[in-house]
Amino acid sequence: MVTGQNFIGYDRSAQGDQTYQTFNPILNIENPEVFYEATSEEIDRAVNKANQAFLVYRNISGARKAEFLKAIADEIMALDDTLVKMYCKETGLPEGRAKGERGRTVFQLQTFAQLLEEGSWVDATIDTAIPEREPIPKPDLRKMRVPLGPVVVFGASNFPLAYSTAGGDTASALAAGCPVIVKSHPMHAGTGELVATAISSAAQKTGMPDGVFSNLNSAGIEVGVKLVRHPEVKAIGFTGSIAGGRALFDEAAKRSEPIPVFAEMGSINPVVILPDALKTQKDKWAKAYAQSITLGSGQFCTNPGLLLGIKSQDLSEFVNDLAEEIVHIEPTCMLHPNIIGAYEKKKGLMKQESNLNIIMEYPDDVAVNYARQAITTVDGNTFIQNPSLHQEIFGPFSMIVQCENSEQLAKILGELEGQLTGTIISYEDEIKDYSQVVESLGDRVGRIIFNGVPTGVEVAPAMLHGGPYPASTDSRFTAVGRHAIERWVRPFSYQNWPDELLPDELKNSNPLNITRLVNGEPTNQKL
Amino acid sequence: MVTGQNFIGYDRSAQGDQTYQTFNPILNIENPEVFYEATSEEIDRAVNKANQAFLVYRNISGARKAEFLKAIADEIMALDDTLVKMYCKETGLPEGRAKGERGRTVFQLQTFAQLLEEGSWVDATIDTAIPEREPIPKPDLRKMRVPLGPVVVFGASNFPLAYSTAGGDTASALAAGCPVIVKSHPMHAGTGELVATAISSAAQKTGMPDGVFSNLNSAGIEVGVKLVRHPEVKAIGFTGSIAGGRALFDEAAKRSEPIPVFAEMGSINPVVILPDALKTQKDKWAKAYAQSITLGSGQFCTNPGLLLGIKSQDLSEFVNDLAEEIVHIEPTCMLHPNIIGAYEKKKGLMKQESNLNIIMEYPDDVAVNYARQAITTVDGNTFIQNPSLHQEIFGPFSMIVQCENSEQLAKILGELEGQLTGTIISYEDEIKDYSQVVESLGDRVGRIIFNGVPTGVEVAPAMLHGGPYPASTDSRFTAVGRHAIERWVRPFSYQNWPDELLPDELKNSNPLNITRLVNGEPTNQKL
Repeated sequence: MVTGQNFIGYDRSAQGDQTYQTFNPILNIENPEVFYEATSEEIDRAVNKANQAFLVYRNISGARKAEFLKAIADEIMALDDTLVKMYCKETGLPEGRAKGERGRTVFQLQTFAQLLEEGSWVDATIDTAIPEREPIPKPDLRKMRVPLGPVVVFGASNFPLAYSTAGGDTASALAAGCPVIVKSHPMHAGTGELVATAISSAAQKTGMPDGVFSNLNSAGIEVGVKLVRHPEVKAIGFTGSIAGGRALFDEAAKRSEPIPVFAEMGSINPVVILPDALKTQKDKWAKAYAQSITLGSGQFCTNPGLLLGIKSQDLSEFVNDLAEEIVHIEPTCMLHPNIIGAYEKKKGLMKQESNLNIIMEYPDDVAVNYARQAITTVDGNTFIQNPSLHQEIFGPFSMIVQCENSEQLAKILGELEGQLTGTIISYEDEIKDYSQVVESLGDRVGRIIFNGVPTGVEVAPAMLHGGPYPASTDSRFTAVGRHAIERWVRPFSYQNWPDELLPDELKNSNPLNITRLVNGEPTNQKL
Repeated sequence: MVTGQNFIGYDRSAQGDQTYQTFNPILNIENPEVFYEATSEEIDRAVNKANQAFLVYRNISGARKAEFLKAIADEIMALDDTLVKMYCKETGLPEGRAKGERGRTVFQLQTFAQLLEEGSWVDATIDTAIPEREPIPKPDLRKMRVPLGPVVVFGASNFPLAYSTAGGDTASALAAGCPVIVKSHPMHAGTGELVATAISSAAQKTGMPDGVFSNLNSAGIEVGVKLVRHPEVKAIGFTGSIAGGRALFDEAAKRSEPIPVFAEMGSINPVVILPDALKTQKDKWAKAYAQSITLGSGQFCTNPGLLLGIKSQDLSEFVNDLAEEIVHIEPTCMLHPNIIGAYEKKKGLMKQESNLNIIMEYPDDVAVNYARQAITTVDGNTFIQNPSLHQEIFGPFSMIVQCENSEQLAKILGELEGQLTGTIISYEDEIKDYSQVVESLGDRVGRIIFNGVPTGVEVAPAMLHGGPYPASTDSRFTAVGRHAIERWVRPFSYQNWPDELLPDELKNSNPLNITRLVNGEPTNQKL
């Protein structure tokens, strides 16, 4: 079923002579499928088709776009075991994780379909005319969101379904009315192709224009850079490393017409454990964090890479308890030799940093590509003075910073780079005595959690997945939840436009029965 | 009353040895007030104060911030003739225009105050917990908008009040909860200082923190560049030229932590006049456009610099009628010798372009710094082949493009750079025969107007002032209307946060009685 070809709209194409294969990290062998790197000509064709498709797709009703998204979900489910097996053999992740992620992906598509069916997401705003106003008449103004144009999506290594081919970026961009060109992730190109088949089939079955979706293979950076530079591409969605996201952001900013890039990148997700919580609930939190740090071999963007507390006997005991818990967790396979290679290299460099203590590194033999988890600790002064200690180590690694006092804790938090999440572990009301700590943490993160773990990103309207740079390249948007659609739309105003020529969303009769802001008041009434 | 000093929060400072003066274009002399260019040390102090003020200001209630904005409006009105006289002598614009723009400025401040008093603008979104959900409990998530941090505002030469010191950018940023540092426009530094006095006085009277507002003088680009590079500055608002806006955008994108820049820049605001409208309403539109092209010496960002029609006897007659109307309009003074210098230079270069016909250039003697309006025409093929003809000439200049047919018209529109506005002049229903033209125009603009002129930007929720690049650097935002506040805020999520520690906007009891999205439904009820 997997051909290794590029999807140029509804056409398949394999004109290039460069090929690559994916890797099964559990068996430690290459998978047999061969993928054809997209050529410049194929890139051009995909983008031109997307641009042509845009002229049609942007005018398709929300109801029909919803049908398309639901059909994608159905087609993904119909791939059944074929998809699950491909997912597992390209990632080393277990079947349960594959199915869970598939459920999340399908749920995201269905959620955006519901948003389109309801229709109020376009933020329709109407100010009616006052012809008699002095000194000049007030015009009739009507505003709604319209799609930006073709969007290029770069998927993540660690979420082959939920943050990749048909993940949140694709679902939200298609919902917005933007054609999507996916730059397939080379580590799971087969999973990507299967999902691309599902999208393509859904598009054809629901009568979407050819070019509304393309999937381009690439093992390197050239295809991605060409896509970002292409004048007909209007926005970029990316999930991955800081280096990768920043490179695309820089390319987009250098264009003669700069375009928006939403890159969700690295994070160490600081967790502050307050003294009373350590005193009273040391075991509970040691257990919870041992699980969170090692979940999915630590390959989550919300993995807790940094724990912070105030120096005490309790904190020392907690560090040991955590190490004790974590040493009993069986190591798991990482996604790819390149990922475990980077993990081991960065961990090795970190271990050489002065004043860093390795409390625990998994001591027993592990299978090839399996990651040895590690827990380290450092004092607050060392952490402040050495920015190398602030960097993300993608994998099951965490560092506990033992601060002098709450002032130093607040200072450290304030100096961290931007983060996806921050967490406060507090025993009952003790958080009230740490308002400066909470304020400093809040300033650096997109989401703040009380007495929990940062892993687990609920798909819900109130979720914010993003945050100050480098958690994302634009803290004003989210990658998860319905508001993710806002990345791909612009407001557009009509002045004194004839009612019959307005889009349905803005007509006097409000035929879609959506909620609109009319003369400053929300209403779903007709005018 | 004007001291020429910089406002570093509540302090005044004039440490620099570089000074400059503003210019009275009507009298053609320098104004007597001397302004002190801000030094690097003064820039640092202003930004540091803004950052300190942010810690306090972001937690001040909407009601109190509204008091602050209303007090600014009151203080501006209290400046009375002092402000009007300074405005006129620094711009050459008439008193009526000064008072009109002051009214707009005050209205904008009051509008944002109302938005804060009502409070729902924070877009509060709540998803309540489902502890019994399988396989994992659903957390309680609550999201609202929070301010980004210190914002730097660069005002426009052509709107010393409405788009400058206390203009839309400052009003929306202060409303968002962001301290503002204005880089004062050198052409109206005295007007800027008077308005800065009003803001500073309002801030002190309403108990706002020192540093919530600063005003820095500068005649060159260095102060602006230093501000954009400053790590504690978190966003930029700019109104002005493409060259200026793009330079700041590039600086911001190069930072180790890139920050958002909303620059509202150039536009030639294409106007399409359809054949039947020319046949039946030639006179009406010639009169209307003669006024619009020369309004304020053509110094509006929405000035109609490009008119397009389909070649015909009617179009030729319209061109002549327009020229006839416009030649009878008395030239007016431009803002500054530099502005008229650039106007005359660009007009002179344009006149040398091949196949461009000058239909009319005001022939009589004019006073110094007064602009001679000009109307030119060109055929569609020439316009397509020569991108120099697509550039903005800031002043009372317009070009009529005579297209071969509606296909060429649509093609030309589709190839234009992004524009603030586009206009269709149509006789009754004839627009229905030009759907491709309308579609092409809509794709390139932020606001589309039916049977009107683009000059006149209503301050209203449904206004979109912005558009595809280079009309703005980010088409997803507006510079005018309540949604302008969205440029300066980011969504922020709380997970399982204790109710009593949540901001009022997100508490169960909904003490502010705002409209919130609770489990997907808008409501102003408590939970």
